[in-house]
Amino acid sequence: MPEHYPNIASPFAKLSLQQKQELYRRAAELFSENKRNLFDRLAPLRTRHISVVLEDIYQSHNASAVLRSCDCFGVQDVHVIEKNNPFNPAGDVAVGSSKWVDYYRYRDTAEAYAELRRRGYRIVATLPHENDQMIGDLDISRPTALVFGTELTGLSQEAIDGADAYVKIPMYGFTESFNISVCAALSLFSLTERMRASTDIDWRLTDDAMLDLKLHWTTQVIRDGEKVLEKLMLDM
Amino acid sequence: MPEHYPNIASPFAKLSLQQKQELYRRAAELFSENKRNLFDRLAPLRTRHISVVLEDIYQSHNASAVLRSCDCFGVQDVHVIEKNNPFNPAGDVAVGSSKWVDYYRYRDTAEAYAELRRRGYRIVATLPHENDQMIGDLDISRPTALVFGTELTGLSQEAIDGADAYVKIPMYGFTESFNISVCAALSLFSLTERMRASTDIDWRLTDDAMLDLKLHWTTQVIRDGEKVLEKLMLDM
Repeated sequence: MPEHYPNIASPFAKLSLQQKQELYRRAAELFSENKRNLFDRLAPLRTRHISVVLEDIYQSHNASAVLRSCDCFGVQDVHVIEKNNPFNPAGDVAVGSSKWVDYYRYRDTAEAYAELRRRGYRIVATLPHENDQMIGDLDISRPTALVFGTELTGLSQEAIDGADAYVKIPMYGFTESFNISVCAALSLFSLTERMRASTDIDWRLTDDAMLDLKLHWTTQVIRDGEKVLEKLMLDM
Repeated sequence: MPEHYPNIASPFAKLSLQQKQELYRRAAELFSENKRNLFDRLAPLRTRHISVVLEDIYQSHNASAVLRSCDCFGVQDVHVIEKNNPFNPAGDVAVGSSKWVDYYRYRDTAEAYAELRRRGYRIVATLPHENDQMIGDLDISRPTALVFGTELTGLSQEAIDGADAYVKIPMYGFTESFNISVCAALSLFSLTERMRASTDIDWRLTDDAMLDLKLHWTTQVIRDGEKVLEKLMLDM
């Protein structure tokens, strides 16, 4: 399971776009055409325009279900704040999705929010609030990081106060909340469908980021993938 | 837990609209103004235009999560086919939603489909199929019953062959399916939001059905509710 802390660079970051293309061309000979086609089809559908932030989720099946939804909707980045609870997605619920989604770990909310702001994100908390709006009305012209809180106590006051906007999902029942994995799936469905249908949001990865992603995916489908790619890189 | 089999009439069905109004007026004195306001606010938001059919769901937390989503989206009716697995929603996940949603039990798929057709429903299976369409493109001008299958083997061939249409949720990932409770929540969100935004779909309950519902809800918030209402009815 990869452990990305912010600012730890990819081992391939120092390569030029041409060098990455050559490295991927060589690496792709080591796995099936089926997988190559899948990578080629999926990479252009992935986005970092919408990202997910999980604050201190303690139930591993909920963490896993959120990773699975991110993969399904093509949301590439999950930012995980581990204050009291280590992030530990359960294998069977995630169905391998932790291999395809990138996640980034933080020790507290302030560190995560600062990093997200540095990357240009608007931070949106998912909870009822006096200034909230419906998820369908949220302006997503800027990169948007959606924050979800713990199952029992919801988002911390720090996470709420630090957010730029608040969204909720329309509800018409006696039950006053969704399970966190359902809430995340509904939010991502609503935002990503709108994003993909738009003509003026630049939501796709750059060619360079797409190659980085395909190189990372490659390390997941080859035995000792990282070492193999590093060796290929030295031989270039 | 109520056990509705189809065609078992409500004990209040023989009353006129005026008699039901009088019965509800009297019953409503037996519970709080808070609850009365809640019933008055929620009943006009409930719908039977979209309904849910569950074929042989065996994990009670999945069954419960679907009931909870139905309540949240104001979907009043859940039709449950119990071929091999008794329907047994788990208390903590449903968060009481089984009290507010009506469910109907069937012994096999043919019986359920016949009853739904008698009630005027178009039956829509949620699965990839050669004739499928995206959930967002489904025509919902007619009453629509969405069918979900078991966790392991999906819908039965009978349930697939008997459906009028097939829908799927757009996916952009390596993972090729959603958990059933997530799939149901996404489908209901998509269809009910479209339904509520439409100007030409007659999705609301009739005044008579709304009163039946409020009388049923009343039985859930008064101790020995059914007996109390029957006694009130005799005294009228």
